[in-house]
Amino acid sequence: MATNAVFAAKGTRDLLPEAMHRRLAVIQTLRSVYAMFGFEPLETPAMERIETLTGKYGEEGNQLIFKILERGEGGREGKADLALRYDLTVPLARVVAMNPALPLPFKRYQIQPVWRADRPAKGRFREFYQCDGDIVGSTSLLCDAECIAMAHMALEKLGFKDFVVHINHRALLTAIVAAAGVPERETEVLVAIDKLDKIGVAGVTKELSERGIAADVVDRLWAILASPADLDAVFAAVGQQAHAAVADLHALFAHLRSLGATRVVFDATLARGLGYYTGAVYEVKLTGVDGQGAGVGTVAAGGRYDGLIGMFSGRKVPAVGISIGLERILTVMEERGMLAGKGTPVRALVTLFSAETVAASLELAAGMRAAGVAVEVWLGEPGSLGKQFRYADQRGIPYALVLGPDEVAAGNVAVKKLATGDQHVIARNGVAERIRP
Amino acid sequence: MATNAVFAAKGTRDLLPEAMHRRLAVIQTLRSVYAMFGFEPLETPAMERIETLTGKYGEEGNQLIFKILERGEGGREGKADLALRYDLTVPLARVVAMNPALPLPFKRYQIQPVWRADRPAKGRFREFYQCDGDIVGSTSLLCDAECIAMAHMALEKLGFKDFVVHINHRALLTAIVAAAGVPERETEVLVAIDKLDKIGVAGVTKELSERGIAADVVDRLWAILASPADLDAVFAAVGQQAHAAVADLHALFAHLRSLGATRVVFDATLARGLGYYTGAVYEVKLTGVDGQGAGVGTVAAGGRYDGLIGMFSGRKVPAVGISIGLERILTVMEERGMLAGKGTPVRALVTLFSAETVAASLELAAGMRAAGVAVEVWLGEPGSLGKQFRYADQRGIPYALVLGPDEVAAGNVAVKKLATGDQHVIARNGVAERIRP
Repeated sequence: MATNAVFAAKGTRDLLPEAMHRRLAVIQTLRSVYAMFGFEPLETPAMERIETLTGKYGEEGNQLIFKILERGEGGREGKADLALRYDLTVPLARVVAMNPALPLPFKRYQIQPVWRADRPAKGRFREFYQCDGDIVGSTSLLCDAECIAMAHMALEKLGFKDFVVHINHRALLTAIVAAAGVPERETEVLVAIDKLDKIGVAGVTKELSERGIAADVVDRLWAILASPADLDAVFAAVGQQAHAAVADLHALFAHLRSLGATRVVFDATLARGLGYYTGAVYEVKLTGVDGQGAGVGTVAAGGRYDGLIGMFSGRKVPAVGISIGLERILTVMEERGMLAGKGTPVRALVTLFSAETVAASLELAAGMRAAGVAVEVWLGEPGSLGKQFRYADQRGIPYALVLGPDEVAAGNVAVKKLATGDQHVIARNGVAERIRP
Repeated sequence: MATNAVFAAKGTRDLLPEAMHRRLAVIQTLRSVYAMFGFEPLETPAMERIETLTGKYGEEGNQLIFKILERGEGGREGKADLALRYDLTVPLARVVAMNPALPLPFKRYQIQPVWRADRPAKGRFREFYQCDGDIVGSTSLLCDAECIAMAHMALEKLGFKDFVVHINHRALLTAIVAAAGVPERETEVLVAIDKLDKIGVAGVTKELSERGIAADVVDRLWAILASPADLDAVFAAVGQQAHAAVADLHALFAHLRSLGATRVVFDATLARGLGYYTGAVYEVKLTGVDGQGAGVGTVAAGGRYDGLIGMFSGRKVPAVGISIGLERILTVMEERGMLAGKGTPVRALVTLFSAETVAASLELAAGMRAAGVAVEVWLGEPGSLGKQFRYADQRGIPYALVLGPDEVAAGNVAVKKLATGDQHVIARNGVAERIRP
């Protein structure tokens, strides 16, 4: 059974303890913030019926779905009937359709992996976590306000100090393109504008020109977008056709003020999720701190999308959602050193001095755990404390507890701090407090 | 795109919020207990290379593996190259083989779903969670003691009062069968004994007889097992060939006493995991309380298995593990009402009295959340408090907060307890304390 070639599947990775501690800490923060806002947890199965997923992600997406072979009685050779979850939105739509008795609005969050047969690359995996919060069944602008405020609190609680929520409205984008004079070229124009962050005004102008958009149209576009953070200025430049969208945006910003979400800006150039969003749209971007993070870009994004959740029921079901980029956030927090100290929770290695002191060491371990202090017991041969200290150090465990015959007789414990080598003999009933984090 | 037939895949289920709250609470308890003992979290990808899984689970297991089609460039039509994780042990063996620099012993826990194409039945799903703790790289009996003590604390922390850990040793079982006179029939004899819980002495006797085991052998077997909880009596009946196993068991029980794990018994009839375990074996059983739980049987099980973790490296890698039956534990806790109160963490619905009071209501919501109290804001039209109260009640939210113009003007909030209908107008700065859990 032995083989020399053993690998994880291409494009997948194991999450070893250090990575897991960091991930669990971030997920725990996100769960607690979702809870504060009344988003309830949901999990759906990894496998969906193949027809549930087919045709939902465009031609390109279809090619990236992992398909599962039929099996057992009646299973047709080489045919697939199941597929792996590709996102969290289609499963949500299925859950809503299958559970007509769910109290609406239904606010759920879901933190689960999805699978896509993308070509693997640095930082791009075929299994990765998504983290979505959605509100289904309400047309209120308060849904957007709550989603934004939730993401706002989540980033604060994670320790980010440089995030800004950029907010725009799908109908305002439509009005802007119409006012520029090319309503029939809306998608092309917005696809180009969406790249503004990356390629700048000159780049977008070049792309619009290459797409055959007339120079005077492009000029009008840049005139409308001259002060992209000034909602009134953009409204004045676009005119009354933007009225409803601008009113929505004013109301949304007022709600956000009431909710205490201050790191929010209007951004007329935010043009995302074409063909998906139907109302307000938002992106949370990191601006960079201390020279770090420039170009990190978007760490969360969302908006209203009233056309999707009803896909299985044939009804129109209003919905608003925000997706938090868990994998990207973990990468940025790692790069910025924001996850230092999120290692093993074990505070001490309980060493084994000799065969005779094993029982005393185990009793000490049990006492520490009863006091809520995580400890590990040395599982090799008793003796050779140097080897035991090296193991603890390698594991990132801060203390070693030594119980020799003298300590056992006196009711003491030698507490060794591994980083410094300092060692103090203290009374056994004071050990938990000494080594508690 | 609309379709009327929308289902989850056969044998799978969605975990709706109520189920998720309970599951997350149990998982959080398990994670905290694993941490107390120095087990570190690990996650592996859902997809493994098909050759990693094939041949590891016997012929029957092979048939139950979900296989994933090749795709993209070079993907052969109808051929599978990946498969879904079938258990957590083979991925652990792969991780150990791929990471030779892991500090040993490597203590990890893993709580993740596995997928098996079993015929679905009541309580049996094709996707279900496993929850394994294993210690790789140590031959010490302390590994068994720590695994048992960990499960012991986990069941205590979950609130179980009727669990007992049954402990036996693979080598003692071998010696018992040999002493009965049929060492060459070991597997058959143990497969029959393994059913003792379910079919009793008469049933096992009948099965042994049907398998052609002579009546005098069966008599000798029952004589050896006359006092199955008395290690010394069994030792005396078996003789010196059981010496090493009995010494191990004595040492293990001594370690467990030192660790304060008191709900442990020797059980010479525990015969599990033949062909898998190589040392001590254990099962945690529920005995039933208040007339409930009889027949619930095993909720955790484990032992030493030195032959498996080295499967990919060709080396022998010692290992001990215990698997906690998360799905079964959830079912039993549900049936016993041990998960009551694990519903939504939302303490109050912040109602909307009228369009004019929306801002005040949002400010109140933000204040509650800043104070660490989870609240939800009504997302329908303002007004109609009855509808808002009904929604909150349906959601299991205990309080509704009402802010009419009078309350806003006076700096008060009307706090309504939905279960009783009691309503008190109190100062706004006292609300968080009033409704905190």
